Amino acid sequence: MKDIHGFRETSQTVTLECSGNGRVYSDPPVPGLQWEKGAVGTARWTGVSLRDVLSRAGVKPTARHIIMNGADSPPGSVPDFVRSIPIEKATHADTILAYQMNSADIPVEHGFPLRLIVPGWEAASSTKWIVCIRVSETEADGYFMRNAYRIPNRPVAPGTAVDAKDMIPYTALDVKSIFTSPLEGATARIGSPIELRGFAWAGEADITRVEVSTDFGRTWSAAALDADKAKYAWRRFRHVWKPAEPGSFVVMSRATDSQSRTQPIAAKWNPAGYLYNVIDKVRINVQA
Amino acid sequence: MKDIHGFRETSQTVTLECSGNGRVYSDPPVPGLQWEKGAVGTARWTGVSLRDVLSRAGVKPTARHIIMNGADSPPGSVPDFVRSIPIEKATHADTILAYQMNSADIPVEHGFPLRLIVPGWEAASSTKWIVCIRVSETEADGYFMRNAYRIPNRPVAPGTAVDAKDMIPYTALDVKSIFTSPLEGATARIGSPIELRGFAWAGEADITRVEVSTDFGRTWSAAALDADKAKYAWRRFRHVWKPAEPGSFVVMSRATDSQSRTQPIAAKWNPAGYLYNVIDKVRINVQA
Repeated sequence: MKDIHGFRETSQTVTLECSGNGRVYSDPPVPGLQWEKGAVGTARWTGVSLRDVLSRAGVKPTARHIIMNGADSPPGSVPDFVRSIPIEKATHADTILAYQMNSADIPVEHGFPLRLIVPGWEAASSTKWIVCIRVSETEADGYFMRNAYRIPNRPVAPGTAVDAKDMIPYTALDVKSIFTSPLEGATARIGSPIELRGFAWAGEADITRVEVSTDFGRTWSAAALDADKAKYAWRRFRHVWKPAEPGSFVVMSRATDSQSRTQPIAAKWNPAGYLYNVIDKVRINVQA
Repeated sequence: MKDIHGFRETSQTVTLECSGNGRVYSDPPVPGLQWEKGAVGTARWTGVSLRDVLSRAGVKPTARHIIMNGADSPPGSVPDFVRSIPIEKATHADTILAYQMNSADIPVEHGFPLRLIVPGWEAASSTKWIVCIRVSETEADGYFMRNAYRIPNRPVAPGTAVDAKDMIPYTALDVKSIFTSPLEGATARIGSPIELRGFAWAGEADITRVEVSTDFGRTWSAAALDADKAKYAWRRFRHVWKPAEPGSFVVMSRATDSQSRTQPIAAKWNPAGYLYNVIDKVRINVQA
């Protein structure tokens, strides 16, 4: 750690999203932790640029990947959690070996004393409790690269068993938004304004627009984006709705990013339920 | 029938849609015939304006509804199929007592010798095998007005048991489109144009636009509308898609009408599954 502190310090505010966020909405269902919308968070990470460390160590021109291992030891027969990322992302100035989270030592559950932060990529790339980084000509060979965190190389029909050779690693996050308030089944009153709030993010891209619909997805209004903005962080959005009639309504949010990506209406199903980013929906019951 | 032929003849091309069209897509499911997309059709109906017949018969200013009965006799304990429509719709020039369908006597299954055509309204209003039309100060009192063909007077949460006093008759059709070709699960080839075809209708309103999406509902292109056009009839639409990559894609159609109504992304669920008009979806598998 002393050596690490010898490099120039740098910080990034980064939204980390679990690849399986929203997996519970897969239809047909897929195995794995049945994440709803919560497997995502944002923090300010401080550490040193991995590029500086790799540069000091010396990297051969044949290097194509870095392979990371953490101090965690898996239970039972679970393989060791070893992942790799391509050298281009590893040597990007924004990829950080972080020792602080929100201006304090990283809590143990978040990777103390040192974790990798791979901004804009699915969170499993951001290895916690780093003990070893190895440079390699090939990607990591274990379960967590060969089998997990892979998606089909083309959209597949729901329920399809996809051949391993047709799967590719899932890397940068897609565009997505979720409501955080009110929650599903909330109650509102006719004529009383209710603030619909949430977050939108797009991995390595910027959020350019969030729209909200309060009429089952027929018409859309631009939500306001909060001023807070960081290259790899989510944007808060809010939209005030004054319900004009009683009933049970589905309100929706739809984000668009600087790569012109927009949230879809129907999901690209995949065997692990990764990348779920369908337009978010919350039901609100309006009383007279 | 001889008396009927004494009135001035008139024709309308009318799309008749069963109220329960798409009922099978209700979630949670609802009882009733599990209609998919087929319970709709269009024909040219020829007969006489019901207004002329009512005018000759003489209608008191207190008349508010007409009550229709047909020659069908219900099986077992099913109540007689008696329906009513408000006097305003009954005396509209376009409401027809029809004796021809597509320039021939109406086939028995379509209501020979005489059926009512209530253009733009759900098809159950268009009573077949007419034997009696009665003018009344109140709507019909039987099962098929008091219980059936009614929708909640506000959007309700899916699965809700709605109080009878909160139900209103379902009358004019909503805006809707369906694909007719290709069918669900069809195969296409990269680089080979495939024509996506279907129909769009809007009851008493006109279809002003049909859009098609071939990327899970992210982006939309205007479909071409065929020149054929009639006040109460569906419009054919077509859109040529040249798939650029292999995979399993959900293509979608979305119609908009002259009342600015557009098909929704999520359904207003109701206990009988009426009015289902969510954006249509067909899965197409593109091969290399």
